[in-house]
Amino acid sequence: MADMSDVVDQGDDEAAILAAGKVLLERLIAVDDWLPNEYARPHPERYQQYLLHCDSRERFSVVSFVWGAGQATPIHDHTVWGLVGVLRGAEYVESYRRAPSGFEYSAPPAVLQRGEVDAVSPRIGDVHRVSNGVEGGVSVSIHVYGANIGAVRRATYVPDGTPKPFISGYANTHLPNLWDRSK
Amino acid sequence: MADMSDVVDQGDDEAAILAAGKVLLERLIAVDDWLPNEYARPHPERYQQYLLHCDSRERFSVVSFVWGAGQATPIHDHTVWGLVGVLRGAEYVESYRRAPSGFEYSAPPAVLQRGEVDAVSPRIGDVHRVSNGVEGGVSVSIHVYGANIGAVRRATYVPDGTPKPFISGYANTHLPNLWDRSK
Ligand SMILES: [Fe+3]
Ligand SMILES: [Fe+3]
Ligand SMILES: [Mg+2]
Repeated sequence: MADMSDVVDQGDDEAAILAAGKVLLERLIAVDDWLPNEYARPHPERYQQYLLHCDSRERFSVVSFVWGAGQATPIHDHTVWGLVGVLRGAEYVESYRRAPSGFEYSAPPAVLQRGEVDAVSPRIGDVHRVSNGVEGGVSVSIHVYGANIGAVRRATYVPDGTPKPFISGYANTHLPNLWDRSK
Repeated sequence: MADMSDVVDQGDDEAAILAAGKVLLERLIAVDDWLPNEYARPHPERYQQYLLHCDSRERFSVVSFVWGAGQATPIHDHTVWGLVGVLRGAEYVESYRRAPSGFEYSAPPAVLQRGEVDAVSPRIGDVHRVSNGVEGGVSVSIHVYGANIGAVRRATYVPDGTPKPFISGYANTHLPNLWDRSK
């Protein structure tokens, strides 16, 4: 968290934040021994979004996403920069750009594998749909955003491009205590 | 938290941090409707220390202390600045300074009432003992420290002044999610 703080303290150069943040997130997801089970638990009906840490000034947040079998997000935007790193399983990512009649793929759909990191932002492409990339299993990814993402006013979209206001919130009322080094 | 972040971002002038932080803490404890019950729960045998928030860079932490009937801390130091504000009940505070044979009171013992804020630091006086100031009841205070206080290497003292190394840790494995504004 201190390292991520250093990254956002460097200034408002989004490309620099994404490049340095990607290195930190790759390091974080390279080892899978730190995420408490309760923040890796799938819900039977929908993907889960668990806040792990929010910066005091809401300059960034760290979130675990958990995808049960067959689960997917709607098409959505973020309005802030975001980094997506796969901790377990894989994610199927469809990236969109505006087109005369709604949205179209901005790149071929791709599978993000365990250990890989993807980025989004209004500058580099902010609209996507993410699905569990593992058939019948659970996938877990760790996301870092340039805001308290659960409180951001953003939008989901139906395929014709019509936006629907969206504040995601979080699935968890309790965060992990990552700060007790006495044990 | 953002306001407290502004305070510590102002620089390293401890007197300025304590003055501005005191105003914020007074405002926080003026209203008693926000602390979830689980962070106000006494333990039958000892005072409890619940982490509520730790700054990303560990520049400050916010903690609730809960004192059951008759409970008290040992004599201890902090090594960093601290602010103590009473949310419920009262605290009986004994402040110490070094003396040729251990410690002596640096001021007459005092009762800190609900809504009042006290300060500690190596500069202004860092050693004290705090007891529940309410007979037979529970007291709750909110503390802000200039570090992740549960991880700080500090000391408790026996009355002759002999230090005993002390890392307090925290009583809680989960923090409140203070960041979900979608509900
Ligand atoms: Fe997304
Ligand atoms: Fe103390
Ligand atoms: Mg912070």
